[in-house]
Amino acid sequence: MSSLTGALPTAALSLHERLAAAKTASRDLAIADTDRKNRALRAIADGVLAASDDILSANELDLANGREDGLTTGLLDRLTLTPARLQGLADAVLQIVGLTDPVGEAVRGSSLPNGVKITQVRVPFGVVGAIYEARPNVTIDIAALAIKSGNAAVLRGGSAAIETNRVLVRVIQQALASAGLPADAVQTIDDFGREGAAELMTARGFVDVLIPRGSADLIQAVVTQSTVPVIETGAGVVHVLLDESAREDWAVDIVRNAKVQRPSVCNAVETLLVHRAAAERLLPPVLSALRAEGVTIHADERALPFAPDAVPVTDEDYATEHMSLDISVKVVDDLDEAMEHIRRYSTQHTESIITNDLQNAERFLAEVDSAVVMVNASTRFTDGGEFGFGAEVGISTQKLHARGPMGLPELTSTKWIVRGSGQVRA
Amino acid sequence: MSSLTGALPTAALSLHERLAAAKTASRDLAIADTDRKNRALRAIADGVLAASDDILSANELDLANGREDGLTTGLLDRLTLTPARLQGLADAVLQIVGLTDPVGEAVRGSSLPNGVKITQVRVPFGVVGAIYEARPNVTIDIAALAIKSGNAAVLRGGSAAIETNRVLVRVIQQALASAGLPADAVQTIDDFGREGAAELMTARGFVDVLIPRGSADLIQAVVTQSTVPVIETGAGVVHVLLDESAREDWAVDIVRNAKVQRPSVCNAVETLLVHRAAAERLLPPVLSALRAEGVTIHADERALPFAPDAVPVTDEDYATEHMSLDISVKVVDDLDEAMEHIRRYSTQHTESIITNDLQNAERFLAEVDSAVVMVNASTRFTDGGEFGFGAEVGISTQKLHARGPMGLPELTSTKWIVRGSGQVRA
Repeated sequence: MSSLTGALPTAALSLHERLAAAKTASRDLAIADTDRKNRALRAIADGVLAASDDILSANELDLANGREDGLTTGLLDRLTLTPARLQGLADAVLQIVGLTDPVGEAVRGSSLPNGVKITQVRVPFGVVGAIYEARPNVTIDIAALAIKSGNAAVLRGGSAAIETNRVLVRVIQQALASAGLPADAVQTIDDFGREGAAELMTARGFVDVLIPRGSADLIQAVVTQSTVPVIETGAGVVHVLLDESAREDWAVDIVRNAKVQRPSVCNAVETLLVHRAAAERLLPPVLSALRAEGVTIHADERALPFAPDAVPVTDEDYATEHMSLDISVKVVDDLDEAMEHIRRYSTQHTESIITNDLQNAERFLAEVDSAVVMVNASTRFTDGGEFGFGAEVGISTQKLHARGPMGLPELTSTKWIVRGSGQVRA
Repeated sequence: MSSLTGALPTAALSLHERLAAAKTASRDLAIADTDRKNRALRAIADGVLAASDDILSANELDLANGREDGLTTGLLDRLTLTPARLQGLADAVLQIVGLTDPVGEAVRGSSLPNGVKITQVRVPFGVVGAIYEARPNVTIDIAALAIKSGNAAVLRGGSAAIETNRVLVRVIQQALASAGLPADAVQTIDDFGREGAAELMTARGFVDVLIPRGSADLIQAVVTQSTVPVIETGAGVVHVLLDESAREDWAVDIVRNAKVQRPSVCNAVETLLVHRAAAERLLPPVLSALRAEGVTIHADERALPFAPDAVPVTDEDYATEHMSLDISVKVVDDLDEAMEHIRRYSTQHTESIITNDLQNAERFLAEVDSAVVMVNASTRFTDGGEFGFGAEVGISTQKLHARGPMGLPELTSTKWIVRGSGQVRA
C-alpha cells in the first residue's frame, strides 16, 4: 500500500475536474456487479484498520486545530476518532457488505397489449453529493453506502476534519482501485472550503442528488441554496400523546424510553401531550419516572400542579429539539387540540399516541402528517436498523422520493427498460 | 349554480392567505374517501360543459388580449378553447374517475421481532403547486389529478390565460363544494403575476411539491429558483441508434414512427445514429421513408452521401429539441461512439437501439442513463397512457422520486404506520 499521507492524487484537479472525474467513474460503478462492490467495501474495512496510525495522527492534527479555533466540546467529540471508533467504522462497512444490493431490482413491469415488455428497475443515482460537518465517520459511512448502491460520491466534510478526511478518502480510493473500480468514484472537496460547498450545491449535470447531514442550519442552507435535488434529513421535534384511555404502564414505559434511552438523537421525544381527563391519573407516575432519570420538566399551566419542580414551558421550548434530558409537557382538551399543537410545532418526523381508543388511534394515524406515526410504541423505533434495513442513510423528513428511515434502495433511482420486436405506435 | 363570472370568493385574499387556505383544505382532501373525490371530479366534468358559454367568453377575452400583446400563433393555439376541446377536457376528467385511487395503498410492511407492525402506505403530498404557461387545459388536468390523489393544488397558469383560468377554477371550486369538499383546495394565483410565481417557488411549509409544465426556459427557471422540492418534467432530445445488425423493416418503421407520428411531442426522435457498417444498407430506405413524410434531414459528413438533399448538421442541431419534422443523422464507428454522443446531447428522456445483437442490446439498456431505454421499439411508447397508467402527470427527466412517465402514484408520498402494544426500544 502506498503512503497514506500527503496530497491526494486528485489534489491538483480543479473542483470542476473532480466532479467530472466522479461523473465518469460513476458509469463504471453503475454497472459493477455486487461481488466487485463488496470486494471494495471489504478493502475499505481492512484499510481503515491497517491505516489506523495515519488516520489517528491526522485526526490529532484536526483536533489540535479545532481546539485552537475554539470548537465546542460537542463538535470536538464528534470530530474525535479512537481505535475503538475505527473498529466500529470498519464493522459498519462490513455490515453493508451483507446487505442486499438494490441495483437491478425489478420494481414493477408488464406486457403491453402489443407485446412490448416494460420493466422498471432500480439503478444508481449516479453521483451522490454529501455535505456534513466535522464528522469523519460520515465520510466512511456515506462512501460505503454509495459504493454498495452503485453510486459515486463527492464529499464535503467540513474544513475542521480536512486532515482526517483526506486520509480516509485515500483509504477508500485505494480500496476501490484494489477491487478494480475507479478510484475517482469517491472524491473529497474539503480543500475548496465554503466555495466548494456552494459549487457542489449547483453542480447540476454532475451531481444527481445531494444529502446534507448535520445541524438544522446546515440543512436549511443546503435546501434553500441547492439547485441539485436534495434529500432533507431533518431534525425531530417529536411528540407523544397520552390519550384519555392510555394504559398507565405503557405510558410510563414509552415516555421514559422515548426521552431517556438516547436523548441526543432525532427520534427522542421532545413534547409530551396529555389529555386533560388523563392528567391526574397519568402525569404523577410518568413525571416521577422521568424525574428519576434526571429529566428536566418544562410544564404548561395545567401540567404544573403535577410537576412542582418543573420550569414553565415556553413557545420556544415547544419548537426546540433539545437533544438533552429536557421535555415539554402540555395538557390538552382533546385529540383535536393535540393534533393542532403537533401541526404547529412538529418537524413531521415521528409522533406516537398512547391510547386504547380505536377511533382515536385511527384518526391520529390518518391525520397526523409525519414521516412515521405510531400507536402504543416508543418513538425510538423510527430507525433504519429497527425497521430491518440493516443500515440507515438517514431519516428523511421531506415528502419527495423518500420519507422516514432510508435504506439502500432510497439511494437509487429507477429506469424503464422497454423490449420490443419492431413495434410502433398506432 | 351561482354566477361564474366576476371575482372569485378568494380574490380579496393575499397570496399567503390563499396558500394557507389550500394547506388547511388539504387536510380534508387527504382523508376524503374515493367516492367523494370521484363525485367532485364528475361535478367538474359536468361543470365544464354546463359553463361552456362563460368559459369560451373568458377565453375570447384572453385571446383578444393575447393577439394585442403579440403572442405567437403557437401560444395562441394552446390558449384556445373550443366546444370540442371542452368536451375533451370533460372526458379526460371522467377518465381520471376510473383510475385506481393511490391513497392508502400499502407499499410494504412487516412485523418486527418484538411484535411491532410497520406498514408503509401511500399518502397525498398535501399541496401540489403547478407553474405552466397559457394552457387552460392544464388547469383542469392538474386539478383533477391532484383531487384524485388527495392533494390540494395551487395553480399559476400564466397571465395570458387569466380570464379563462378564473372561470375554470370557479367551476372546480363549485364542484368541490358540491361534493362536500373544501372549495379552497384548488386555488389560482394568476392575479399575482410573476411575483406570485416567485412566492410559490419558495413557499416551504405550504407547498409540498412543485411541478413546472412548459418550455425548457420555464422549467429551468423553476428548478433553479425553487426552494420547494420540484419534479422536473423535461424536454426530450431523443435518440434512435441503428446498430450494425438492425433489421431494415424495423429500422424504417421505428424511425418513421418516432419522427413523424407526432413530431411536436417530447418522445419524438431528434437524432438518428447509424453504425457505419449499416449506413449503406439502412440509410437509403430510412431516409427515403422520412423524405416521403416531408422530414428535413440534417446530416453529418458521413451521412451526407446518402442524403443528397440534406442540410449539414450542426452541434446546435444535436442539442435541440426541434418539435418539428427535422431530424439529425450521424454515422458512428461503434456502440461506444453512439453512447458517447448520447451522453453528450441527450436530455435523458428516451433512447432506443434497433439491433439483433444481444450483447449490444444489453449494453445499451444497462449503460445508457435515460428515464426510458428501449430495444427495437419506437420512442413514442414513452407515455403514461401507453404504459397503462390511464393518465399522465408528465414525464419526469429527473432521478429523484419519479423517473419517466408519471401516473397518479407519483403524486403521492408515503408514511410509515407503526402499531405497537407498549413496546419500547431495548
